[in-house]
Amino acid sequence: MDPLSLPTPADIAPAYARIESVVTKTPIMRSDVLDKRLGAHIFFKCEHLQKTGSFKFRGASHAVSYLDDTCPGVATHSSGNHGAALALAASTRGFGAEVVMPRNAIAAKIKAVGTYGGRVHFCEPTQQAREAGLAQWIDQGLVAIPPYDHPHIIQGQATAAWELLAQVPELDVLVAPIGGGGLISGTALAALARGQGTVPEVIGVEPQGADDTYRSRALGRRVDDHHPDTVADGLRAFVGEMNFELIQAHVNDVLCVTEDAIIEAMRHLMSDLKQLIEPSGAVPMAGLLAHKKKFENKRVGVILSGGNMNLPQSLIDVEGVAA
Amino acid sequence: MDPLSLPTPADIAPAYARIESVVTKTPIMRSDVLDKRLGAHIFFKCEHLQKTGSFKFRGASHAVSYLDDTCPGVATHSSGNHGAALALAASTRGFGAEVVMPRNAIAAKIKAVGTYGGRVHFCEPTQQAREAGLAQWIDQGLVAIPPYDHPHIIQGQATAAWELLAQVPELDVLVAPIGGGGLISGTALAALARGQGTVPEVIGVEPQGADDTYRSRALGRRVDDHHPDTVADGLRAFVGEMNFELIQAHVNDVLCVTEDAIIEAMRHLMSDLKQLIEPSGAVPMAGLLAHKKKFENKRVGVILSGGNMNLPQSLIDVEGVAA
Repeated sequence: MDPLSLPTPADIAPAYARIESVVTKTPIMRSDVLDKRLGAHIFFKCEHLQKTGSFKFRGASHAVSYLDDTCPGVATHSSGNHGAALALAASTRGFGAEVVMPRNAIAAKIKAVGTYGGRVHFCEPTQQAREAGLAQWIDQGLVAIPPYDHPHIIQGQATAAWELLAQVPELDVLVAPIGGGGLISGTALAALARGQGTVPEVIGVEPQGADDTYRSRALGRRVDDHHPDTVADGLRAFVGEMNFELIQAHVNDVLCVTEDAIIEAMRHLMSDLKQLIEPSGAVPMAGLLAHKKKFENKRVGVILSGGNMNLPQSLIDVEGVAA
Repeated sequence: MDPLSLPTPADIAPAYARIESVVTKTPIMRSDVLDKRLGAHIFFKCEHLQKTGSFKFRGASHAVSYLDDTCPGVATHSSGNHGAALALAASTRGFGAEVVMPRNAIAAKIKAVGTYGGRVHFCEPTQQAREAGLAQWIDQGLVAIPPYDHPHIIQGQATAAWELLAQVPELDVLVAPIGGGGLISGTALAALARGQGTVPEVIGVEPQGADDTYRSRALGRRVDDHHPDTVADGLRAFVGEMNFELIQAHVNDVLCVTEDAIIEAMRHLMSDLKQLIEPSGAVPMAGLLAHKKKFENKRVGVILSGGNMNLPQSLIDVEGVAA
């Protein structure tokens, strides 16, 4: 296999075998109250309980597992979760990690990269600046571990759905958020790999304010313009080349959700599941709430992709109405 | 056994057998980051993931399991969690539930009682008013299921620690919050029942603003005055008679924590465990943070007692510093 060719469903079992011992097998949660509200059977895959608080640790661990012991260190660009994940994965092999982050990355994620031993380097919040910042480190000899547009990353992220499909049999649909497209393209490959006879539908959800994948599908190729404006800070990246190719081939549908719907979804996940899910991680739930008919009576697997966010300044609302 | 005599360790296994099929076997969570911060091994028993969002469903289910099919309905007083738990437990047997709640109960809990089919009746926020409100319903022939000062309730609440001690072997300490004392007295009985040779230490934690148990221990009998003022709305009740007797006999220590420490503990549980824990449920964690030395290098079981709260009005803090 050419290690840089487009990943296939056959890659996912070997990828899982490589990282199974280092990743957390995250639990599944469900809620009678939510199921009733949605008229469906929802199974939440808790990747916010993954090491470093997001699914990104899967791809990072997988990519790092391919590095030689002589590797002089790794570098990446990231809004935060991939950076923290890579820092931890690299540190377990004794490598340093340089993480180029946009200046508008949130404080909790900037802090997390440092917690796991990574070094943060700020850049302007544009795709160009992120890639230019990374190029400087590559020029110095470090190994680039990109956040999503790489086979090892996609194969690693696929293991979340791979696990989910083993934990919950006979799902009709899988729903995941789309940022750069690492998780959704991996999810589609896992569905194909696990689907015995009937392959679950795979649906991606994007914020309206970062709908590059949705528009790219309409156009049939990646759009030229991308000016993300959304509270879902983990989904501001531009969909990757390899990711878009896999999405076009294997993802059944892409839905868009408003900013209000994302906040509403976060509230449901807090009040009904008691889980703190970051805005990006609540985007699939927002898709379910906004497109209820589409999921009615189905068995739906939802990937809660992460839980890293700045906490609300005031936690106590004595006057507040219930969620 | 006189059903109204003081519960003993021997009661807990039979109590668990009665309710095992209806309660959720809640999971255990842990965090490397938190363990490192505290210098201890902490195992969190996730009773906020119990049905109705708190451990109260255990005691309520246990008490309801003793009712005759001819029961005309049940009644209680509650700051909320026992009311919702009783409403659900009663409804599974087809009984109605009248719930006397203090006017200052939080909106989320008032709503929850209704969600599970209970009828809310408000009273002044004093122990006397709560008991007087309940007496009216008893006069009408309903069966009182008190929130904590009853053997069936204490035996039921004990099953949380009973499960925990089966899930995590060789704990050195169990830590639980104290309100009316149902959970802590049950926890102490479970520790005695499960402790093979070495019985884990049992430590209760109270808000300074509702330190009736702490003061009662100093006095050697229940204090006469109790004017709770704390954000931990679930811990404002006055410690029960039977509960205090069991606490005096079997609880090793009672710690007090400030309001700031409770909020800080909630933040840690959100950022490090990604769990939404109500103020009352965060009180044991506040105790760990405030009395770090006491728990150093120990294996500590912490009961996260509930997760029902009004959600913060604003969830998104773009400027905020990390937790």
